[in-house]
Formats: sequence, structure tokens, C-alpha cells
Amino acid sequence: MSELLPRAQSAAEAIGPALQAAGWTLATAESCTGGLVGHLITQVSGSSAYYLGGIISYANSAKQRLLNVSADDLRDHGAVSAPVALQMARGVRATLGADVGVSVTGIAGPLGGTRDKPVGTVYIGLATPDGEQVAHYVWDSDREGNKLLSAIAVLELLASSIDLD
Amino acid sequence: MSELLPRAQSAAEAIGPALQAAGWTLATAESCTGGLVGHLITQVSGSSAYYLGGIISYANSAKQRLLNVSADDLRDHGAVSAPVALQMARGVRATLGADVGVSVTGIAGPLGGTRDKPVGTVYIGLATPDGEQVAHYVWDSDREGNKLLSAIAVLELLASSIDLD
Repeated sequence: MSELLPRAQSAAEAIGPALQAAGWTLATAESCTGGLVGHLITQVSGSSAYYLGGIISYANSAKQRLLNVSADDLRDHGAVSAPVALQMARGVRATLGADVGVSVTGIAGPLGGTRDKPVGTVYIGLATPDGEQVAHYVWDSDREGNKLLSAIAVLELLASSIDLD
Repeated sequence: MSELLPRAQSAAEAIGPALQAAGWTLATAESCTGGLVGHLITQVSGSSAYYLGGIISYANSAKQRLLNVSADDLRDHGAVSAPVALQMARGVRATLGADVGVSVTGIAGPLGGTRDKPVGTVYIGLATPDGEQVAHYVWDSDREGNKLLSAIAVLELLASSIDLD
């Protein structure tokens, strides 16, 4: 996966100028990536100017307690779903008092896949002052690769969405 | 820093059996490492059995809002201090409802160092059902290295403290 690291680094470096041009702060809500998005963001010196922090909601109890994700939606759609990704993004934005909330929930593998949601399935949520969106991917890598591809997708969605403003 | 990755991986793999033998769940509170501890823990397949999640409290506002860190202690001792590390560990344990809370707060650099607290200064807090402790280190590396050394110290403290029970 080391060939993906320069892309991850570039994506992490792109979000700072975009956020600062918009005057926005950022918070992250991570499930399958387990903190990797926050780690990549904070590899950039000066990231404390726009990154407030985040929630690693690995267990469903953490999604409910800290991000106000609906127990009904967790039951009906599963933790890896568009409604839960969106609620995680909204939730972390509110919990940390940030302008932008971004989230990621997925199945890194090798365990946990199903026919409908194979290993590599991931949903990314974004909530900004301008609106909300959800993106969906299915990666075809191992645990480490699926985490890194998911984190890159989060950062690239973030940078491109803010640049469009 | 790639020479440290096997050590980080070993440390992350050691905590699972230790926590599971004790029947304990874990939550993390990270400042300077920005999510790296959670990322390393969740590189291990099956970590969801003991890792509930964590808080990345990069901004002081996040330390207060999510971890109940005292504003007085932040003012009097600074965010990088033993009292704040301990409150972060206690706070994340309570917030996530985990048996064990571990925290890390430090100055990764290259900015932010002072004469009393040079770049590389880090405090690690641990709160378990058996008691509490704080560890203090001063690393002599760059931003990436200071983050990784801090994360390894968190994981190694965790594994050794639980093994002693």
C-alpha cells in the first residue's frame, strides 16, 4: 500500500488551503478507518488551524452515544449504510462545533462482509454549511488497503467539495 | 520512520490478548497523535471485540467539550501536561463507557515548542479499573517520528500495564 501514501499526503495537504479559504473548521467521524483520516490530516504541520478533532466510533454504541446515530437506522440499514454515514457527519459537526463534518463507515475486512455488502464496501458522509452528500465505494484490497483507500476518498471528497464553493 | 512500523504493529497486536484476558474494553483520547493510535489498533483484524473507539481532541475546545478536561488546568498547566493527560484518559473512559481509557497529549512539532516543553514532549495517561498512571517522554524526532513514537509508547504502556494485573 506504500504506493498510495503520496496520494494520501497530497490529499491531506489540499484540504487545509481549501478550508482556510472558506474560513471553515473541520471534524471527522471514523468507523472502519479507525483514526487514519485524523492521522493523515494531522501529519500536516499547522493543521490545528482548521482541524478541531474527531470521533472514532468503532462500536455501534459509540455511534449512538457520541454522534447521535439513530438506533432504528442502525438496525434497519446497518452501520455501513448511507443514512448512518450522513448521521455520523451531521453528528460530529454538531458535537465538535465545526463548520464541516465528514464521516466514513465501511467493512475493511477480512471479516464482516456479506453478499449485499462485501468486504471493501464504504459510505462517506459530508455535511457543510452549503449542504450534505453521501458517496459509496466498494474497494478490492486487503484491510490495510481498504482503510487507506477509504481515507484518501474522504480527503479527496472534502477538498473537491470545498473547492467547488 | 518505517523502521518503527514493525514495533508499532507488534504493540498493537499485543493489546488485544491482554485486554481480552482481563475482559476489558478500550477507548482512546488522542491529541498530538491525531488518530494514529486508533489507526494502529484497528489495523488488527478482530479489534472491534475490545476497541470501542475514541476521541481525537486536537483543539482545546474538544478536550473540554468531549473529555471534560478542566479549563483551569488547561490554563494553569497547558494542554501538554500530566493533569490534562490524566483527565483525558478518565474522560474518554467515561464518555465511551469503556473499562480502560488511554490518552496522549504532546507537541509533535516542528512548531509549538517552548523552553520548558520542547518539541517532542508528550504525556500519556492511563485509567483502568485497577488505577491510574501518567508517563512522560521527550522524543527527539520530526513530526512524523514524534507521532509514531508517542503512539508506540501508548500501546506498549497499555500492554505492559494490563499484563501486570
